[in-house]
Amino acid sequence: MSGEQELGITESKEHNPGDWYAEVVQKAGLADYAPMGGFIVTRPRGYALWERLQGYLDGWFKETGVQNAYFPMFIPESYLEREKDIVEGFDPEVAWVTQGGHDELEERLAVRPTSESIITPFISQWVRSHRDLPMRVNQWCSVVRWEATETKPFIRTKEFLWQEGHTAHRDHESAWEETMLRLEQYERLYEDVLALPPLKGRKPPHDKFPGAHTTTTVETLMPDGKSVQAATSHYLGTSFAEAYDVAYADEDEEERLANTTSWGLSWRALGALIMSHSDDQGLVVPPTLAPDQVVIVPIWQEETRDAVLEYADGIREALAGAGVRVRLDDRDQRNPGFKYNEWELKGVPLRIEVGPNEVEDGEATLVHRPDGEREVADREGVVDAVDDALDTVYAKLYAAAEERLEENVREAHGRGEILGTIGRHGGYVKTGWCGDEACETEIKDEIAAEIVMVPLDDDADPVHEDCGVCGAPATTTAYFAQSY
Amino acid sequence: MSGEQELGITESKEHNPGDWYAEVVQKAGLADYAPMGGFIVTRPRGYALWERLQGYLDGWFKETGVQNAYFPMFIPESYLEREKDIVEGFDPEVAWVTQGGHDELEERLAVRPTSESIITPFISQWVRSHRDLPMRVNQWCSVVRWEATETKPFIRTKEFLWQEGHTAHRDHESAWEETMLRLEQYERLYEDVLALPPLKGRKPPHDKFPGAHTTTTVETLMPDGKSVQAATSHYLGTSFAEAYDVAYADEDEEERLANTTSWGLSWRALGALIMSHSDDQGLVVPPTLAPDQVVIVPIWQEETRDAVLEYADGIREALAGAGVRVRLDDRDQRNPGFKYNEWELKGVPLRIEVGPNEVEDGEATLVHRPDGEREVADREGVVDAVDDALDTVYAKLYAAAEERLEENVREAHGRGEILGTIGRHGGYVKTGWCGDEACETEIKDEIAAEIVMVPLDDDADPVHEDCGVCGAPATTTAYFAQSY
Repeated sequence: MSGEQELGITESKEHNPGDWYAEVVQKAGLADYAPMGGFIVTRPRGYALWERLQGYLDGWFKETGVQNAYFPMFIPESYLEREKDIVEGFDPEVAWVTQGGHDELEERLAVRPTSESIITPFISQWVRSHRDLPMRVNQWCSVVRWEATETKPFIRTKEFLWQEGHTAHRDHESAWEETMLRLEQYERLYEDVLALPPLKGRKPPHDKFPGAHTTTTVETLMPDGKSVQAATSHYLGTSFAEAYDVAYADEDEEERLANTTSWGLSWRALGALIMSHSDDQGLVVPPTLAPDQVVIVPIWQEETRDAVLEYADGIREALAGAGVRVRLDDRDQRNPGFKYNEWELKGVPLRIEVGPNEVEDGEATLVHRPDGEREVADREGVVDAVDDALDTVYAKLYAAAEERLEENVREAHGRGEILGTIGRHGGYVKTGWCGDEACETEIKDEIAAEIVMVPLDDDADPVHEDCGVCGAPATTTAYFAQSY
Repeated sequence: MSGEQELGITESKEHNPGDWYAEVVQKAGLADYAPMGGFIVTRPRGYALWERLQGYLDGWFKETGVQNAYFPMFIPESYLEREKDIVEGFDPEVAWVTQGGHDELEERLAVRPTSESIITPFISQWVRSHRDLPMRVNQWCSVVRWEATETKPFIRTKEFLWQEGHTAHRDHESAWEETMLRLEQYERLYEDVLALPPLKGRKPPHDKFPGAHTTTTVETLMPDGKSVQAATSHYLGTSFAEAYDVAYADEDEEERLANTTSWGLSWRALGALIMSHSDDQGLVVPPTLAPDQVVIVPIWQEETRDAVLEYADGIREALAGAGVRVRLDDRDQRNPGFKYNEWELKGVPLRIEVGPNEVEDGEATLVHRPDGEREVADREGVVDAVDDALDTVYAKLYAAAEERLEENVREAHGRGEILGTIGRHGGYVKTGWCGDEACETEIKDEIAAEIVMVPLDDDADPVHEDCGVCGAPATTTAYFAQSY
C-alpha cells in the first residue's frame, strides 16, 4: 500500500500552498518540469484543458468577427525598436536568436515576447480604406519572456501558451468597444467555463502594457489570498498606429490614423483554475473543461463480475450517446478504492459507482468530486441525473469561489490599516487613491501588495474621498492585493 | 478598370509556374512575405485552410489513441547531442538562442527543428511498464530549419507549421503498425480532403530521417512535374530508445527497450494543394477545406434589387441551415463581374448566380469554380443540388490530379533514357535500382532528380531485373523525380 500512498497528494493546500500546487500539477499528470529552468512540458491531461478552453474562446472570437492568422515567431530587433515603449518594456526579457546554422546573424531576432511589433506593420499593409476596418486578427501561439523568477507551472514560465488578438479601428469609440468586448469575453470564460468569478478593471497608469493608452484586466482571487491577472485587454490609442503607420482613407478620402487594440489570455487561466478548485485529494476541474466528465467504477466479486460490467457498460453507452465524456474503468488489476483515489487525483468531476446492489435495484450511485456528496439515480433516468449532477458540480465550484471572493474584498483606510488587513487576511483591500504611484510603492515595499486594478466605472464603485495611503483627495478607488 | 485588372493573376501557371504560385498565394490573401528572408505571415484565408486540415487529421489521430501535448520550443544543445544522427542531420540548420534578456546563456538552446530530442526523454520518464504502452503524443507547433534556399510560401520557409507525433511501443511489430497507420492517415488526408492522389513508399536508406530505421513517405506530383514530399512517417527502431533510455518492464518483469516512431505533416500540404488545383484565375481549393464553399452573387437593376436580394438571402439561409459555408455578396458598390473575379481569385468552389430571371422561374444558376460548368437548380431543391455540386467539384479536382499522376509515371531503362524522360516530361521515372547511392548521384548531378521513393511492397510493384543506371542486378524498384 505504500506505493499507492505515494501516488496521492502529500502536501497540504492550506499549510503549504506552493508545494501542494506543484504536487497537484505533477501527480494529476498536467505538466512536468523541462530540463531548462523556467520551462515546462504540458502533458496530455494538461493540454486537454487548454484545448477545451481554446474551443470556447475561439468560438466566441469567430462569432464576433475575429479571424485567426499566424505570424513569425521571430521579430527583427529593428522592428521591436520602432515602438519605444515596447522596447523598454520587453528588452530585459527577450530571448535572442543570434546564430542560424553555423553563421552569426547580421541582425538579432527576438523570440516574440508579444507580437504587436510584427503584426501591426502587416495590418498597416492590409488596411487601405475605412471599408477594411475594423480589422481583427488573432493567433494562438507561445511567447517567451526571460524572467529570472521561480518556475510555477502555468503561472510563471519563460515560455507560455496564449492567444493574442490585434485589431485596428476607425476611431476611438470603435476601438474602445472592441477592448470592452474582449474583456467581457474573458469575463464570460471565467464565469461560464472556469467557475471563477472575476473582478474587472483597469490597471493603474504606471502598470499599463508598454505603449498602451489603457490596460484593462480580469483578476481572480486565489485561495491563498493572492490575485492572478487572468487576462488583459489593451486600448492602444494611436501610439502603435503612429509607430507602424496604420492609416486609412476615410469616406472623404482624407488619410486618418487608425486606433488599435490588443488582448490576450494565457495558460495562467489554467493555473488559476487548478489552484482555485483543487484540494488535498488532487485536481478539481469543472465539467466544462474536464477531459473525462464522468468515470464509472464497477464493484464486483467473482460471481457478479459479468452482470455488473454489462450493466456499467450500458450506462457508459447511454451517457456517451448523450454526448457526456465518460470513461468506464474496468481494469481487473485494481480495486475500486484505488480507482476512486486515482480519478479523484485526476479531477474527474463525477463518479458513478455500480455494484451488485445497483444492478439489482436498477440504480446508480453518483458521487460529486468536490465534496463527496452522494445521490442515487434510477437507471432509466441516469442521463438526466448525470446532466443535473454536472450542473450542480459546476454551481458548487462557482459558489465556493464566489463566497471566497466576497469575503475577501475589504475596505481599509489609512496606511496601517491597509497593511494590516492584507497582512492578516490577504485578499483585496479597496480604498481611495490619489493617483500617485508613490502611494502604491509605500504599500508594495512593505508587503509586496500593489494596485491590481481600479474600477472601470467609478460611479458603480464610488470613490473614497481621501487616498487611503497619503490622505490627499482621491481620484479613484483602488484595489490593493498581493499577486502572482 | 486598370485597378481591377491588377487585382487578378497576371502570371501564367504553364509558362511561369514559380511566379504564378507566388502571385496566387499573395493575391488570394493566403500569405505575405515577412521582413526576414525565409519567413512568411499566414493570413486569415491561408490559416483557415490549415485550421480545417488540422480538424480532419486531429480527429483521426484522437480516434486512434493519440493525445496532444506541448513541449518547449527550445532544446538544450546537450539534449540534441545525445542522438548523434540527429545532431549531424540538423546541426547545420539550427537557429540558436544564445542570449536571454541581457545575459549570455551558459548553454545554447536550439529552436526546435523537430522534437525527438526533447520528447523522447519525457516518454522515457512516463513509461514504466508494458501497461503504459503504446504511448502516443502529438503536438501542433512550428519548427525552424535555417536553410539558405529561396523562400516559397508553405513549400520552403525557415519556420513552418506542422504536427509531429511521437510514439513508443513494446516491439517492432507494434511500432511498424503505428508507422503504417499514420502513413495511411496522411494518404487518406490527400485522397479525401486535399483531392490529391498520393504515392506511398519508403525513402532510400541514404535519405532517411536522421536516426530512423525506415522513413516512409507520401509524395504528390505537382503540375510542373516535380514531386512534393507531403508527409513522412518514421519507424525509428530502438535507436532513439537507446539514446534517451526508453525502457519498460515486461510481463515477466524483464526490462526491455521500447521501439519508437515519429511522423509529421507540415503546411507543405497546403503548398501542394494550392499549386496543384489553382489556375490562371487564382486559387482553387476543394470544398472540404474552403472557408467559403459557396458564394451567392445577386444580379439586380434598381427596380429588381429588393426582390433579388430577398430571394438570394433565402437561398443563403437554406444553405447555412444545412451546414454549408455560404456567403452572400450583397455589396452595392461592386458589379457582378467584379465579384465573380474576386471570388474566383479567392478560390470559392461554387458560385450561385441569382437574377430577376431566376427569381421569376424559381431557380438558381450554379457555376463550378474549376471549369466554369453551369447548371440550373430548382429553388426548392437547391440544398441538394449544392451538395451534389460540391461533391462534383471535389471529384473533378481529384480526377484531374489523378490523370496527371497516371500520365506521369513512366518506365525508363538506362541512364540516357532516364535523363531524357525526366528532362522532357518531368514526373516520375520508375526503374530498377541496385541500391547504391552512387547511381542516384549520377542522375542527380545531371538533372537534380533523385530517388523520391521505393515501393513499400516490391511484390505489388515488381523489381526490374537490372539497375536502370549501372546495369547491375536490381534489388528494388525506384521512383526518380525532381522535387521541391
